[in-house]
Amino acid sequence: MTLTVDTERLRADIERTGEFGAVPVERGHARTVRCGTDANRRAREYLVEQLRAADLTVEIDAVGNVAGTWCPSSADPETDPVAVGSHLDSVPEGGIFDGPLGVYAGLEVVRTLQDAGARPARPITVVSFTEEEGGRFADGLLGSSVATGRRGVEEALELTDADGVTLDEALTDTGFRGEGLLDPKGWTAWFELHVEQDTVLESAAVPVGVVTTITGITHCEAHIEGEPNHAGATGMDDRTDALAAASELVLAVERAAKEVVATDSTSAVGTVGSLNASPNATNVVPGAVTAGIDVRDVRRASMDRIVDRVRETLARLERERGVQTTLQRPFDLDPTPMSDQLRRAVHDAGAQAGVETLDLPSGAAHDTMHVADATDAALLFAPSRDGISHNPLEWTDWDDCAAATRVLAGAVADAADVQFD
Amino acid sequence: MTLTVDTERLRADIERTGEFGAVPVERGHARTVRCGTDANRRAREYLVEQLRAADLTVEIDAVGNVAGTWCPSSADPETDPVAVGSHLDSVPEGGIFDGPLGVYAGLEVVRTLQDAGARPARPITVVSFTEEEGGRFADGLLGSSVATGRRGVEEALELTDADGVTLDEALTDTGFRGEGLLDPKGWTAWFELHVEQDTVLESAAVPVGVVTTITGITHCEAHIEGEPNHAGATGMDDRTDALAAASELVLAVERAAKEVVATDSTSAVGTVGSLNASPNATNVVPGAVTAGIDVRDVRRASMDRIVDRVRETLARLERERGVQTTLQRPFDLDPTPMSDQLRRAVHDAGAQAGVETLDLPSGAAHDTMHVADATDAALLFAPSRDGISHNPLEWTDWDDCAAATRVLAGAVADAADVQFD
Repeated sequence: MTLTVDTERLRADIERTGEFGAVPVERGHARTVRCGTDANRRAREYLVEQLRAADLTVEIDAVGNVAGTWCPSSADPETDPVAVGSHLDSVPEGGIFDGPLGVYAGLEVVRTLQDAGARPARPITVVSFTEEEGGRFADGLLGSSVATGRRGVEEALELTDADGVTLDEALTDTGFRGEGLLDPKGWTAWFELHVEQDTVLESAAVPVGVVTTITGITHCEAHIEGEPNHAGATGMDDRTDALAAASELVLAVERAAKEVVATDSTSAVGTVGSLNASPNATNVVPGAVTAGIDVRDVRRASMDRIVDRVRETLARLERERGVQTTLQRPFDLDPTPMSDQLRRAVHDAGAQAGVETLDLPSGAAHDTMHVADATDAALLFAPSRDGISHNPLEWTDWDDCAAATRVLAGAVADAADVQFD
Repeated sequence: MTLTVDTERLRADIERTGEFGAVPVERGHARTVRCGTDANRRAREYLVEQLRAADLTVEIDAVGNVAGTWCPSSADPETDPVAVGSHLDSVPEGGIFDGPLGVYAGLEVVRTLQDAGARPARPITVVSFTEEEGGRFADGLLGSSVATGRRGVEEALELTDADGVTLDEALTDTGFRGEGLLDPKGWTAWFELHVEQDTVLESAAVPVGVVTTITGITHCEAHIEGEPNHAGATGMDDRTDALAAASELVLAVERAAKEVVATDSTSAVGTVGSLNASPNATNVVPGAVTAGIDVRDVRRASMDRIVDRVRETLARLERERGVQTTLQRPFDLDPTPMSDQLRRAVHDAGAQAGVETLDLPSGAAHDTMHVADATDAALLFAPSRDGISHNPLEWTDWDDCAAATRVLAGAVADAADVQFD
């Protein structure tokens, strides 16, 4: 049975979702959809409408995760469902594919199976997780971290944004504070389709990637305390400039990651993504800097080597520049290998659909990292033009979206023991 | 004739002024007195009361500069007065001495001369300039820039703050939108006493500094444009990280200033005081950075050498890192030498009062920079404990305030051709 995805139907859902929180930009398509905002409410409401229109039963859990389940008469409602999905939120001025592709590909899989008269033995659940990107209430992967028990429900609901608004309040205000909790342990398998955000598939001209391992991630926060002082009246030898010290740290992180790439693991990355100086006035020697450091690799040892270099650098800056430093590590996830069985199923589905597939690691975190703790999980990638993401220029050709959705449909059909008329 | 300053009277005025806009802090004394605010109104009203109480005739000019003139019968009202003063506004959470010391030392000079039965041949004018610190309507030195013709009155009155309020409105609302304009060209001499904001006097244990040259100041704004991208999915060799590039710039500015100090001019300083990264999220490779650079020296050539190094560094970063850069120079003031004749008069006054004096440059900008274009100008410094200023811990001992005011009184008396009974 060859499954035919409706490219235009998939495209319409993704484009419509891209209108919520849209930001005018010169080139590309930008949207800002932070968790629990009005744009997020509209994106979720549109999803609920589309799930219901396709005959799925919708549940909203306590932290706003949305699930729609298709349980036709062929399926035993007591068996574990196959789940498929991603997220709807975005980074500020992010693109329209990161997240929505995986959610609407999941829904399109169900619609495709319905159109083909498929009779699954298991229910199929389409999922949208809360605050995957992070940045308002948490560092990211919020909904999946609660669903998989890494974080307590109450603790999550009490998380506050910069203005003191709790997740509970934001979800209640937008109508997405539900009850109960999604339980990935009760899923027989989980699939997520996402944009690659790198150039491996584009370079190889292959439309579907099958992730072998999701990179481990450490977030460190380095605080450097110098002495704020008058930029004119304080001689070069009398200052303890926190920003000059922080600049050495930024370059040390870059250098350490490049060394690990050259010697150990080509997938390792180290980034100082955020830097906040205080008092941050042109005519004042900076007194304090906080820097947010992101370290990732599919090998734990490579990550630790880069973090060790951060520690050594801070110790050296204390000795050489007289600053005081602290290092916190608020976020740390091991590398996560994907299910071998589901990977084989995805490759087989590709072969059956006549779509080429390719193994590759994921440098980005995804909700699948958490779900893989609870059940067998697979992560599929579609090509990103120029590897660009978290950016208005993020782009995946509609034909590639459809090809990846066809492969996804084949793999989901296999996991759900689908029979055709 | 030995002049005796009333330390307690001077202290009472400075402490009272420190109460306007006071901010509770754990240690020290903080005040936030932005131009044209209620705190500024109260500080100005108190000054006007004290000027009138000492028999000075008060004028408010079009941009809110306050002047009180003592013209006793001994003085010819047609001759050019001697002017002395400073400013009353502060940086956010600034100290109580920066500005008010110079204004109330000026008034205390008049009261001291009155108490001593002095008969000046010239009037003596005590001045408080509008918005010396800047930050609400302008970069700083606002009142003196208008009084000396560097900036037009109408242009100044139309300056707006971040909320769109004009200087005209703020002055009118607080009752300090006067008429006409102070004219420093009509002053025979100008004196300003200010806190040093560095440790030269403290280290030398000398209570009065006599400024040789006020540093020149350049403010540059460098903009570095890289490519924002996913911190996990973008390999180390595929990124154009604006923050890593900016970090090289920060260190290049520091290095360039230190080299100039070592080879050319010990007073040179170069600071990257502000740095704003975008999107400034830990998990995104920084796409753009704007850095505010402050370069100062008493030698123009040293300043230019540091700015040249900024330009060279940006050009190198374009070549080596593929970033795009721009450099703007919104603020540029030449070094300003003080009047040799008035400097000698201040040293002589110190010798006569038995107070040690010391030549030194000023690394900070002061209204005296502008006034020196219009007439002979002198700038005196009192010691700053630990060199701290623009900070609640700013402190100058009351005895040092009084000693500096005695020296100031001697120099003003000399310039005003004072006779004693």
